[in-house]
Amino acid sequence: MNIGFIGLGLMGAPMASNLAKAGHTLHVWSRRPQALADYAKRPSYQIHPSAAAVAAASEVVFVMVADSPDVHQVILGEGGVAEGGKPGLTVVDMSTIAPETAREVAAALFERGIDFLDAPVSGGEVGAINASLTIMVGGEEVVYERIKPLFDLLGKSVTLIGASGAGQVAKACNQIITGVGVCAVAEAINFAHKTGVDAERMREVLMGGFAASRILDMHGQRMLERNFVPGFKAWMHQKDLGIVMDAAHAQYLTLPTAAAALQLYNAMVGSDLGDEDTTAMLKLFEQMSTAAEGASA
Amino acid sequence: MNIGFIGLGLMGAPMASNLAKAGHTLHVWSRRPQALADYAKRPSYQIHPSAAAVAAASEVVFVMVADSPDVHQVILGEGGVAEGGKPGLTVVDMSTIAPETAREVAAALFERGIDFLDAPVSGGEVGAINASLTIMVGGEEVVYERIKPLFDLLGKSVTLIGASGAGQVAKACNQIITGVGVCAVAEAINFAHKTGVDAERMREVLMGGFAASRILDMHGQRMLERNFVPGFKAWMHQKDLGIVMDAAHAQYLTLPTAAAALQLYNAMVGSDLGDEDTTAMLKLFEQMSTAAEGASA
Repeated sequence: MNIGFIGLGLMGAPMASNLAKAGHTLHVWSRRPQALADYAKRPSYQIHPSAAAVAAASEVVFVMVADSPDVHQVILGEGGVAEGGKPGLTVVDMSTIAPETAREVAAALFERGIDFLDAPVSGGEVGAINASLTIMVGGEEVVYERIKPLFDLLGKSVTLIGASGAGQVAKACNQIITGVGVCAVAEAINFAHKTGVDAERMREVLMGGFAASRILDMHGQRMLERNFVPGFKAWMHQKDLGIVMDAAHAQYLTLPTAAAALQLYNAMVGSDLGDEDTTAMLKLFEQMSTAAEGASA
Repeated sequence: MNIGFIGLGLMGAPMASNLAKAGHTLHVWSRRPQALADYAKRPSYQIHPSAAAVAAASEVVFVMVADSPDVHQVILGEGGVAEGGKPGLTVVDMSTIAPETAREVAAALFERGIDFLDAPVSGGEVGAINASLTIMVGGEEVVYERIKPLFDLLGKSVTLIGASGAGQVAKACNQIITGVGVCAVAEAINFAHKTGVDAERMREVLMGGFAASRILDMHGQRMLERNFVPGFKAWMHQKDLGIVMDAAHAQYLTLPTAAAALQLYNAMVGSDLGDEDTTAMLKLFEQMSTAAEGASA
């Protein structure tokens, strides 16, 4: 199949590669042409001069970029996917963006006879490489069923959540729970450390009860090992929680622990921890409690 | 063995019962004599006129009361355990209290030749009844080893965390992670509901990724079923997080998401949700977002 792929970054590149491995032809374009240098020699990839040209050559176009304005620009902007896409094209946006933007883009494409799915993912770079992503899809069921075989080349758990925007809402819920979870685990580990208690033993005991979570298990373990290599960079969670808070703001929804968490991710980026894994949240707490080390001695 | 048990409430009563079933004689006293009416006819129980009298008749005294001042009063106050206890007695406090109080009580008893363990539990009423509690112990290893066979009659997972107070610190970490976790899950479910997205499907998908936790699994499911029967009452988590914040305050430790969570438990108790399960946190969010229902329609 002729598949467009726009956004060959940390996540997008291995995802496109998984589609190419299955025998599909990948039509690509980048806002930064140097990003495509590697692809010129690969037989499965065809480089195009614009997103519109990618769309004109493809039956399905995947988009995997950073934020809502990028998605808007690449799809509805000048020389964008909508310009080149013929009726019958399907556009699948796998970026994490505002649910409202997903609905707007879907509506604008619908008028041109182009189908749209929002399909944000979780599972990080490792999931993208191993094709083990969790994919949360919003859109029409008939479109979802058509694209499902391609999703199965990218992820392990693929679910149609609901109508347009529903994939982004599920991703927002994911980012609330994981974002807050990392903070709570970092707070607990720092609390144990500073009160002179073996945090490793604490984590182990808590994993046997109601506090058990994948965040306490995996991220907790990495905090204890002081392994802050991403994984998932703190600035990305900062970005995602910003999107969530904007959506909540627009609907008068209160997210008090997510709001506290966002302040902490802001502080991480603001203190040069943005490019480290979210587990470096522990470092932030350590920086805020150096005096307590003396107090607990 | 002659075992004292002070605090025959929701948790203490089934715990004492599990000790009695194993053939031990239970020496009991209560600040509210009517609480002991049921025990007068049970052959394994002997009722005493004071905590001091309980201590005088026992080799080990368990305490399971509500808060730090109660523990202080019952052990070190007038007519308390310390007054009647002979050197060689072991006092085991299973209440959730301040780590600092645990250390103070341990030091005061040490001077009288009485051993002390702090041994708070998690697992709730069901865990107390089924003897499946998680027990987090602080104190001397030799004392812990001596009491271990009794702990095994009460819980499934029993761990010596460290020195005096360490059990309470581990419990504090547990209450941070679970208390914040319940809020984050309630925020996410309310967010899904109010944006018209199937929260059940959202929860199911998220359980396959990094957001997976026992709180999302069990408490999330109960929120979706609107089952708010305790379980663990909201006012108790409010109390426990208050203890945690006091301990953090004394050591200049910052707990931003736990602080946000405590404000929400305060609001639950302040709006007549205190006697419901912590899962009624969802109701609090619903009360704060009735306008959004119209917005999402």
